[in-house]
Amino acid sequence: MPALEIITIILFAVFAVYDYGKSHSRSNNKHFLKEVLFQDVHVMIFIGFGFLMTFLKRYGFSSVGINLLLAAFGLQWGLLTQGIWHLDDGKIKVSIFKIINADFSTATVLISFGAVLGKTSPVQLLIMTILEITIFSINEHLVATVLEANDVGASMIIHAYGAYFGLAVARVLYRPGLRNGHENDGSVYHSDLFAMIGTVFLWMFWPSFNSAIADPGFTQLTAVINTYLSLAACVLSAYAISSLVEHKGKLDMVHIQNATLAGGVAVGTCADMNIGPFGAMLIGLVAGIISTLGFKYLTPILASNLGIQDTCGVHNLHGMPGILGGLAGIVAVALGKKEGGNAAMQAAALASSLGFALVGGAITGLIMKLPFWGQPPDQNCFDDSIYWEVPEEEEENEESLAHGDHSKNKAEV
Amino acid sequence: MPALEIITIILFAVFAVYDYGKSHSRSNNKHFLKEVLFQDVHVMIFIGFGFLMTFLKRYGFSSVGINLLLAAFGLQWGLLTQGIWHLDDGKIKVSIFKIINADFSTATVLISFGAVLGKTSPVQLLIMTILEITIFSINEHLVATVLEANDVGASMIIHAYGAYFGLAVARVLYRPGLRNGHENDGSVYHSDLFAMIGTVFLWMFWPSFNSAIADPGFTQLTAVINTYLSLAACVLSAYAISSLVEHKGKLDMVHIQNATLAGGVAVGTCADMNIGPFGAMLIGLVAGIISTLGFKYLTPILASNLGIQDTCGVHNLHGMPGILGGLAGIVAVALGKKEGGNAAMQAAALASSLGFALVGGAITGLIMKLPFWGQPPDQNCFDDSIYWEVPEEEEENEESLAHGDHSKNKAEV
Amino acid sequence: MPALEIITIILFAVFAVYDYGKSHSRSNNKHFLKEVLFQDVHVMIFIGFGFLMTFLKRYGFSSVGINLLLAAFGLQWGLLTQGIWHLDDGKIKVSIFKIINADFSTATVLISFGAVLGKTSPVQLLIMTILEITIFSINEHLVATVLEANDVGASMIIHAYGAYFGLAVARVLYRPGLRNGHENDGSVYHSDLFAMIGTVFLWMFWPSFNSAIADPGFTQLTAVINTYLSLAACVLSAYAISSLVEHKGKLDMVHIQNATLAGGVAVGTCADMNIGPFGAMLIGLVAGIISTLGFKYLTPILASNLGIQDTCGVHNLHGMPGILGGLAGIVAVALGKKEGGNAAMQAAALASSLGFALVGGAITGLIMKLPFWGQPPDQNCFDDSIYWEVPEEEEENEESLAHGDHSKNKAEV
Repeated sequence: MPALEIITIILFAVFAVYDYGKSHSRSNNKHFLKEVLFQDVHVMIFIGFGFLMTFLKRYGFSSVGINLLLAAFGLQWGLLTQGIWHLDDGKIKVSIFKIINADFSTATVLISFGAVLGKTSPVQLLIMTILEITIFSINEHLVATVLEANDVGASMIIHAYGAYFGLAVARVLYRPGLRNGHENDGSVYHSDLFAMIGTVFLWMFWPSFNSAIADPGFTQLTAVINTYLSLAACVLSAYAISSLVEHKGKLDMVHIQNATLAGGVAVGTCADMNIGPFGAMLIGLVAGIISTLGFKYLTPILASNLGIQDTCGVHNLHGMPGILGGLAGIVAVALGKKEGGNAAMQAAALASSLGFALVGGAITGLIMKLPFWGQPPDQNCFDDSIYWEVPEEEEENEESLAHGDHSKNKAEV
Repeated sequence: MPALEIITIILFAVFAVYDYGKSHSRSNNKHFLKEVLFQDVHVMIFIGFGFLMTFLKRYGFSSVGINLLLAAFGLQWGLLTQGIWHLDDGKIKVSIFKIINADFSTATVLISFGAVLGKTSPVQLLIMTILEITIFSINEHLVATVLEANDVGASMIIHAYGAYFGLAVARVLYRPGLRNGHENDGSVYHSDLFAMIGTVFLWMFWPSFNSAIADPGFTQLTAVINTYLSLAACVLSAYAISSLVEHKGKLDMVHIQNATLAGGVAVGTCADMNIGPFGAMLIGLVAGIISTLGFKYLTPILASNLGIQDTCGVHNLHGMPGILGGLAGIVAVALGKKEGGNAAMQAAALASSLGFALVGGAITGLIMKLPFWGQPPDQNCFDDSIYWEVPEEEEENEESLAHGDHSKNKAEV
Repeated sequence: MPALEIITIILFAVFAVYDYGKSHSRSNNKHFLKEVLFQDVHVMIFIGFGFLMTFLKRYGFSSVGINLLLAAFGLQWGLLTQGIWHLDDGKIKVSIFKIINADFSTATVLISFGAVLGKTSPVQLLIMTILEITIFSINEHLVATVLEANDVGASMIIHAYGAYFGLAVARVLYRPGLRNGHENDGSVYHSDLFAMIGTVFLWMFWPSFNSAIADPGFTQLTAVINTYLSLAACVLSAYAISSLVEHKGKLDMVHIQNATLAGGVAVGTCADMNIGPFGAMLIGLVAGIISTLGFKYLTPILASNLGIQDTCGVHNLHGMPGILGGLAGIVAVALGKKEGGNAAMQAAALASSLGFALVGGAITGLIMKLPFWGQPPDQNCFDDSIYWEVPEEEEENEESLAHGDHSKNKAEV
């Protein structure tokens, strides 16, 4: 880790300079708004993704802590790998805009992290971060600059890419020993509440995520409104389907924590298109339905039949809704909802994102599978205590008597 | 729920379009600032209200989860019902400004939700959402357009209205069975900390709430400063009174979680008026006092003598401070602190808000009382497990042995 | 407390007026951006500092609650004491800019609060707030106006000052009885997660903190980017060192919660200087190293040898990184990284901040040590129940019978 950071700093020393131009060339407004949106996206990356994964009863330290580690390294790496494509006098000019894109690139890693959550070591995850962001930068360059496809909210290049990259890694790292589940692979009451902190912050700031790189003015306003309405409709369908499929019409926290966000993912590609409030809500409604059904029926099948153990169900929150977003983008562009859009290029962008994800993820998985990265054994999965100094259990901290007894008890067991 | 959302989407298909005009007519600045304030208000609605209600030991899923459900539906419904009053070529033009107002309209529902928290079903609450927001839109139109009264921070049309609407509903849904309390109607250590997340986010962003619809420039600045100072003074008086009235001068979390916010409610109506920093602080000071005293002495009386069981004590946080805000507005306008203000119209606005709240709430309560909305029986009140798949208790998740004993144990009981 | 607030309100009545001028003189942009940054700083003060200190298993109410109390009073007091230096027609003109500075002044108190956390009464802390902010205002005036030193991110005048002020107070209030630790001076699993809420919000919004008072435009952009990169590098070194020094290469939550933020502190003074992305990252890297090593090796020594019991380890998060920031500023100015900078003045500013902190803290500590402020006895330290009505323990809140069984059960084992 120290070596990694030192190399990174040296690369910055060689390549990175401030972007003097930007703050002059572009109006202050834009600069200011970017700074605002940058903070909103930042909250999604660090609080949103970090706490969303704290639902596991014994993996909260790793969820928030490793999320912070990967994001902090990923944004530096993203600045470099994305900057390479836009060198200016051989320099990477760092601006708020580039920082937002760096935050975006880390999102792909945090999505993939969800698929392998609890089953990988920090070192394995740092390797994944380096490779996934590097490959992301290639695909992003291809999609945005070569294909000139529209993906303002990144349904394809972030969500679909991040999800299928993670699922490919998970497939390669398949653990037969977890076929019948793991006692720590579940939540407790308060861990589900911590996860809701992540859910709600992701939900609230998604309009900023989908509009952050949109052209200021009406286009950006459209992206905000479409995302807002898609998310709102998605919440209703997620709740409805959850209560329909669950025992006695009860709601399942897993669905609420995740499927309520699918609308933000699915509306991403066409967030800045003239699809109308109605179109945005329709996309959100469908996203909430397929996401919830995915958690209920598809995830178990993927695990048992395809050997894809998807801890957080990223396939349901980012994978399918991401593809839905890509398809919606193709349709919207074909219907002329975006000036200068090209449906074929949209389709190519989706295919490219999925291709880079699956191939890149498989290769990355194979590298992560090498035996010297400290991958945890099955029995230590989903458990902070293998990587963290974990304090004693809560109930041991009441009256010292019960405490003493109880721990003796533990000792004996 | 699916039907409800489908109807809503159809209504949007028929009525809603983007507001092209706005982003051109008004300067980008205003547009940008609105977007910023919109996010702050958004945080108050979804994190603030949602987590403030997680103080109940066994009702956290419902507090955050149903808060999300009601807000997500309410903002769609609010866009429609408020839009009806401002149709443009028979269309509702959706803008950031309209979205902020829609968020505001949902606030009334979330306030009322606090009064009936733990004692109503999601279906009952969705019905309340539809009716309360519809009636809110009528009263808001009356107050803002017909009476042309000042209520920039909505002490009257949101806080007083939402509180007394909810209290009227609670009165109609009175449960004699809960006369002597309920074992789950209380907090645990960590649930009180989750609630503080809500308190602090509400506290911090209240200046944005009270200034969101103020005229940009000095007026808006005034609204921010007045709210900020009122809240600061309110914290001091809430702490002081709490330690004065509690046993051994201890502080009561219920007071700190709620009464510290009363200053934001009470300064709402005259937030943008020239009342001076001193005036704002005085309002906050008084609000903190009456709110804390209300929790300590009035809430028990309302429950035992009037049959009004106010779970979160919204009467103390939103009701009385809302009226105080309305009265302060009348005085401030009478003293000429607002150009073009009319004290009589301010008084009429307060009366109108209270009238619509009490009558509307009573009618809504009667509809909610119909026997086929799945209202929970007394013994299941304040308990997530009736609507949610709830994970096992925390201490059952240590070593399976103790777990086994404990559950057997439970079974025997 | 009531008297205190009444006096404060009277002072506001006499001195405070709105700043009409500002919102006209300065462009709306600047005004808007300030409002945005003000909210970010606000979040750091109330959520960041408040929750960062909830790591203690039994002191969460006090951490968040007293943090709110001190901040709410401190910002009023800060407006007055800072305003005194800039009277205009004998009035303090309240503007967003002044409000940000008031928030800053409270930060010093909240830093010092961390050093004495769990060992002082609310009254003692309010006394500390009055004195520390008053002395801060003198030092700030000296540093900014007289010495004209650069300290945009306040490494010296807030972080170093707040830390050493608190350490001086802690030294005076030394408790031999806690020499061997205290059973409540530790965390539990979920309290560490609550603390991470504080850590992550502080981490995310630090770029706003360090750029809030920078000149809009390129200088401000530089402050944002430098802080962002310094923090990112700091996270990597904090994780690396934590796993190097801990048993079996495990990570220690205390390091992650605190040392990951040292980069924001250390880059503060030269955040707006042309130190280059590389320079910023180097500062962050070093800050993460010394902070983590400080927690591991220095804190125990300070407690055992110097009688300085630093509950939150503010010396490691704010003290040493603050000095590092001051030194970095001297070097950067000497290297001509800041137009018009003067290295000697930078050094004088650092010395002044440390001097006022140590002397002011010692005097404040002596006043706080007077026997009639209700300082808690050793056995009640780190325990909310001395100042708060604390609910029963979690597992006691199932059904009382099972509870009985369960605990008996425990006892029997």
